[in-house]
Amino acid sequence: MRPSERTPNQIRPVTFTRQYTMHAEGSVLVEFGNTKVLCTASVEAGVPRFMKGQGKGWVTAEYGMLPRSTHTRNNREAARGKQGGRTMEIQRLIARALRAAVDLKALGENTITIDCDVIQADGGTRTASISGACVALVDALTYMRAKGMINTNPLQHMIAAISVGIFNGEPITDLEYIEDSQAETDMNVILTETGKIIEVQGTAEGEPFSFDELEQMLSLAKHSIREIIDIQKQALA
Amino acid sequence: MRPSERTPNQIRPVTFTRQYTMHAEGSVLVEFGNTKVLCTASVEAGVPRFMKGQGKGWVTAEYGMLPRSTHTRNNREAARGKQGGRTMEIQRLIARALRAAVDLKALGENTITIDCDVIQADGGTRTASISGACVALVDALTYMRAKGMINTNPLQHMIAAISVGIFNGEPITDLEYIEDSQAETDMNVILTETGKIIEVQGTAEGEPFSFDELEQMLSLAKHSIREIIDIQKQALA
Amino acid sequence: MRPSERTPNQIRPVTFTRQYTMHAEGSVLVEFGNTKVLCTASVEAGVPRFMKGQGKGWVTAEYGMLPRSTHTRNNREAARGKQGGRTMEIQRLIARALRAAVDLKALGENTITIDCDVIQADGGTRTASISGACVALVDALTYMRAKGMINTNPLQHMIAAISVGIFNGEPITDLEYIEDSQAETDMNVILTETGKIIEVQGTAEGEPFSFDELEQMLSLAKHSIREIIDIQKQALA
Amino acid sequence: MRPSERTPNQIRPVTFTRQYTMHAEGSVLVEFGNTKVLCTASVEAGVPRFMKGQGKGWVTAEYGMLPRSTHTRNNREAARGKQGGRTMEIQRLIARALRAAVDLKALGENTITIDCDVIQADGGTRTASISGACVALVDALTYMRAKGMINTNPLQHMIAAISVGIFNGEPITDLEYIEDSQAETDMNVILTETGKIIEVQGTAEGEPFSFDELEQMLSLAKHSIREIIDIQKQALA
Amino acid sequence: MRPSERTPNQIRPVTFTRQYTMHAEGSVLVEFGNTKVLCTASVEAGVPRFMKGQGKGWVTAEYGMLPRSTHTRNNREAARGKQGGRTMEIQRLIARALRAAVDLKALGENTITIDCDVIQADGGTRTASISGACVALVDALTYMRAKGMINTNPLQHMIAAISVGIFNGEPITDLEYIEDSQAETDMNVILTETGKIIEVQGTAEGEPFSFDELEQMLSLAKHSIREIIDIQKQALA
Amino acid sequence: MRPSERTPNQIRPVTFTRQYTMHAEGSVLVEFGNTKVLCTASVEAGVPRFMKGQGKGWVTAEYGMLPRSTHTRNNREAARGKQGGRTMEIQRLIARALRAAVDLKALGENTITIDCDVIQADGGTRTASISGACVALVDALTYMRAKGMINTNPLQHMIAAISVGIFNGEPITDLEYIEDSQAETDMNVILTETGKIIEVQGTAEGEPFSFDELEQMLSLAKHSIREIIDIQKQALA
Repeated sequence: MRPSERTPNQIRPVTFTRQYTMHAEGSVLVEFGNTKVLCTASVEAGVPRFMKGQGKGWVTAEYGMLPRSTHTRNNREAARGKQGGRTMEIQRLIARALRAAVDLKALGENTITIDCDVIQADGGTRTASISGACVALVDALTYMRAKGMINTNPLQHMIAAISVGIFNGEPITDLEYIEDSQAETDMNVILTETGKIIEVQGTAEGEPFSFDELEQMLSLAKHSIREIIDIQKQALA
Repeated sequence: MRPSERTPNQIRPVTFTRQYTMHAEGSVLVEFGNTKVLCTASVEAGVPRFMKGQGKGWVTAEYGMLPRSTHTRNNREAARGKQGGRTMEIQRLIARALRAAVDLKALGENTITIDCDVIQADGGTRTASISGACVALVDALTYMRAKGMINTNPLQHMIAAISVGIFNGEPITDLEYIEDSQAETDMNVILTETGKIIEVQGTAEGEPFSFDELEQMLSLAKHSIREIIDIQKQALA
Repeated sequence: MRPSERTPNQIRPVTFTRQYTMHAEGSVLVEFGNTKVLCTASVEAGVPRFMKGQGKGWVTAEYGMLPRSTHTRNNREAARGKQGGRTMEIQRLIARALRAAVDLKALGENTITIDCDVIQADGGTRTASISGACVALVDALTYMRAKGMINTNPLQHMIAAISVGIFNGEPITDLEYIEDSQAETDMNVILTETGKIIEVQGTAEGEPFSFDELEQMLSLAKHSIREIIDIQKQALA
Repeated sequence: MRPSERTPNQIRPVTFTRQYTMHAEGSVLVEFGNTKVLCTASVEAGVPRFMKGQGKGWVTAEYGMLPRSTHTRNNREAARGKQGGRTMEIQRLIARALRAAVDLKALGENTITIDCDVIQADGGTRTASISGACVALVDALTYMRAKGMINTNPLQHMIAAISVGIFNGEPITDLEYIEDSQAETDMNVILTETGKIIEVQGTAEGEPFSFDELEQMLSLAKHSIREIIDIQKQALA
Repeated sequence: MRPSERTPNQIRPVTFTRQYTMHAEGSVLVEFGNTKVLCTASVEAGVPRFMKGQGKGWVTAEYGMLPRSTHTRNNREAARGKQGGRTMEIQRLIARALRAAVDLKALGENTITIDCDVIQADGGTRTASISGACVALVDALTYMRAKGMINTNPLQHMIAAISVGIFNGEPITDLEYIEDSQAETDMNVILTETGKIIEVQGTAEGEPFSFDELEQMLSLAKHSIREIIDIQKQALA
Repeated sequence: MRPSERTPNQIRPVTFTRQYTMHAEGSVLVEFGNTKVLCTASVEAGVPRFMKGQGKGWVTAEYGMLPRSTHTRNNREAARGKQGGRTMEIQRLIARALRAAVDLKALGENTITIDCDVIQADGGTRTASISGACVALVDALTYMRAKGMINTNPLQHMIAAISVGIFNGEPITDLEYIEDSQAETDMNVILTETGKIIEVQGTAEGEPFSFDELEQMLSLAKHSIREIIDIQKQALA
């Protein structure tokens, strides 16, 4: 029995609230149960220096947690004077995943910056971020076409992500904090809408895991991501 | 005529949504029109080193803007590696104001940290922050009494804040961004529920202003803050 | 009775020593009793990037305290690797005040940087800094005219500043450290030579204060600043 | 045909030179072809603050590249004033993997710090680092037993790592820089000597990859890691 | 002929003004011609962590230049967020020299921090700093004896410093900025009152120099330092 | 008797291994006994901004110690977020010395960056660095001529460095760590192949030293450096 009383392959209620704030070209509040992340997409003409003159665009991402999005207060990274390793790792992951969803040539020399700020954390903030960021990205691309900044749709495929794990020896999907903190293995999977792999990251927290368990977790992830992509599409409809 | 089409002494719709997030001991979303700030109060036993052994508590505050809470994206302070001067100035102001509302002795050797994070900015984020933080503080103090951390109520008086200014030669209250950016003078006023002054900060943005204008702005502020304190009290009822 | 044995409206001996150091275009040692601040004005052709192409100049300021300008040694900010919140707040205040004294268009695309370094502190370092910086600024503008960098005088009015407060329930002017550290209320006022307001910042250190007390402090400040502006003018004569 | 002229499942010559430097408790130069990393293990009594009083030890890791270990010179992170995101990500990966190889209880309240410094880079520095660090760790544990710091061997299993990828549509193992920079997919796999998974990280650099390709890459990795663990054991014999 | 019109072995007018500021236990304004440095010595009970429990004291130093102490304005190190290499090098030199003048055992577990802040620079700021710091140190030690913090005089010998160089092929002493910037060789010498060497640092700016030239410069330095030590002693009399 | 059992004027075995790594234009492992430093020279077209348009090149240097190159582990400077004072001092010394060996005009607008990374430390790392860096520099200059980047040889003279000191009252050369840590005086000398002085830095660690002792140490240094330059030349032959 999961602490969340969900079945092993049952995800939490997932919602995407578009136009959540008014300034950003894409602004989505994504909720996976109690995990809530504000994902904004900001469009800017031009690209960073290292990309100049290649006729291609750029997609980047930054991630942060509000200090009291968690059970106990975390120090504010701006006050500490640097982003921690976990933050860096997550924002690199988000950016890489979104770049893999976009044809940078079709984007022209424009930059889209995705900000994922965790309002409330209850496990799975990085995968919720990626799933929400994809919706914000779509809105930003729609804005760009409306403004004549691009002529074709650079989106190659929708992407979504889920965390899966081994809990009490059984594979489960979409771990809440209480499940995550006790899981033996934690795996984040990012897939396209056609079921291909963008990124897989599986880590043994305690005991190493078997190739069998890996396969079971991947299968759960595939199923859950199909559900999430359906919800994304409904939100965008 | 104000760009906002409000009368000179008319504040925007003000709301305080308590228990906005689930982890913090006090969590309030304050809205002044389109300005939205999440104010959380975190309670911790113990005090910072410089306060130890005095039998008194401590109240501190941090302030941040989400990168895309504004018209164009601001760099993330955590990524830049330091908080800017404006941020520092505002969080020092918030903390000072809240300390002036609390009897630190009655708080015992406990610390309350207020985080004010701007979700959406449309002028007056610092005064909205202070007004919302006061409500979050009250909730945190209630939590502490319920937990037996304190025996009496350390709150000496509710406080609230408003920005007032001179726009086209006329004093107006609760400036939106578009008004603020064109105002000749900008003043932030923090008062207690009994109409006494916690802090007054008036700055000539362009032309110096007269003592008469100062008096008119103060009078507007007094009136607006009375309204805000009423709304705070209804929210807390 | 004030600890300083001065009457409530009596300022300390104030002096401005021009050409205190030899390299800066304006260099003034300002003394308010035992508070001594070296204010230098450095002229540079060109403006910072965000001001380029507007045909306007820029005035900025930095503030620092020598580590042992105070009773006990303060850590050196350069060694700590960042400027503290108080320093940031003060240098922003000084810069804002001086910009309000100058017609930036008349300055052309030139930058004046004011450095205020506290040699010895005994209360009122920020208001002494502003009063001294104005004299250094005048000298720098004179230098620029002599060099043909500008054709008209960009100075719109002399400015000066004073700190006033409530001590033992009575309003007093120009607080020394010992008075400042025990005051209930502390207010910094910056006025033009014509008695208009550039900036007012009043803070309740302990008890909130009344609108009456505010008025009394402002009246004291007005009187003291008139005296300081006279001394500035004599120094410049 | 691979640019390296190796067969798809052929790893480069792998060597572990123990006692490469004289001060560290474990010191191993690991070479995967032209990739050369110095891995040192430093033993210290005591644990970091957050681990105190749990009767457990700690294993941590840091990673760095010498500025000219690469084709063109990289800026020195110490001079830039911070470690980049890639560095952080890699050193977190190394530390996590080694902790999964060790019984922290059997380590007692001692800390082992692994430093992996890349002398020469030609692809696969992170997986070479992990493979070399495991050998250095074994030497450090032997030292600790000899000194009486521990009574049992905390090592639960040898671990080793390899990078595999899809190159020209075909899965290959142990990518050199020239292969890595053109690969469609890049995956790092860390296994125990018993063939269980410690960590799997697969990333689509260009095109998303299929579950089939994932399986093929995993199978290559399994085979290569078995070879590397044999070489580790010979080196330790 | 030297640009300064001085003879090769003629130092500039040197003065030490004691009790230059009121808070520090030792406070000396040292002037070597137009070079002016404020040297303060701050006494604190206790020693830094790495010195604890050895029954010895500690002497350390920090150095800074006011931004406009120089011909053109230097960026403020506190604002840049770090001390430059030159600053670090100089403050390490000052501290080392002063520690060599003091019997740290006789100092007890107390710390003296010397701050050397350059008010006006015209060459030789580091050697003026050391010469002035020694006088401030003596005053601080006198204070400590008066307060009963120490029973004997920890000073082993007065020290002073001078810069010498090769200018137009000829050795000269006490270089002003204009001489320094054109010198072929620059050497800083720190001696005790008994003519023994504390530190010698000679650098070829352009052409390497000969052992003969080294000897001539050392001989000039010896002579100049004797003069400076006389002036120090008069100041302390 | 020296702890190293060497005679006072006997240097350790000195070797220079060229082409130690494959990417750098010059790459030399220098060994002075157990002290091992990897010196790489990286060639880049162009010069830093402050050198632009002068028709001259630039030579700069950076220095670092691997965390466990020493007896006990040193914190990694990249992780601490800044280079320490000792590191800064040493890299400034190395750069200055190499620039004194090169005709910057003959170098054209090109930059050579020397990285000296200590693999294993046993005293004299800075002087070994300089001696090794000179060999790497020669290789980089040869590379530049071969590539047609320069037409003449900018090297004016080979340089080498040695540390000498007073140990038990007697002057000795090339101090190992155990000697260095107990020496009364420590002096670093950098000479050209023609025996002229590039830099001399002598520091009294405990007792001040005499002019006689200085002369004896210099004489030892002269002799040792002649030996080292012979070995450099053999390595380059």
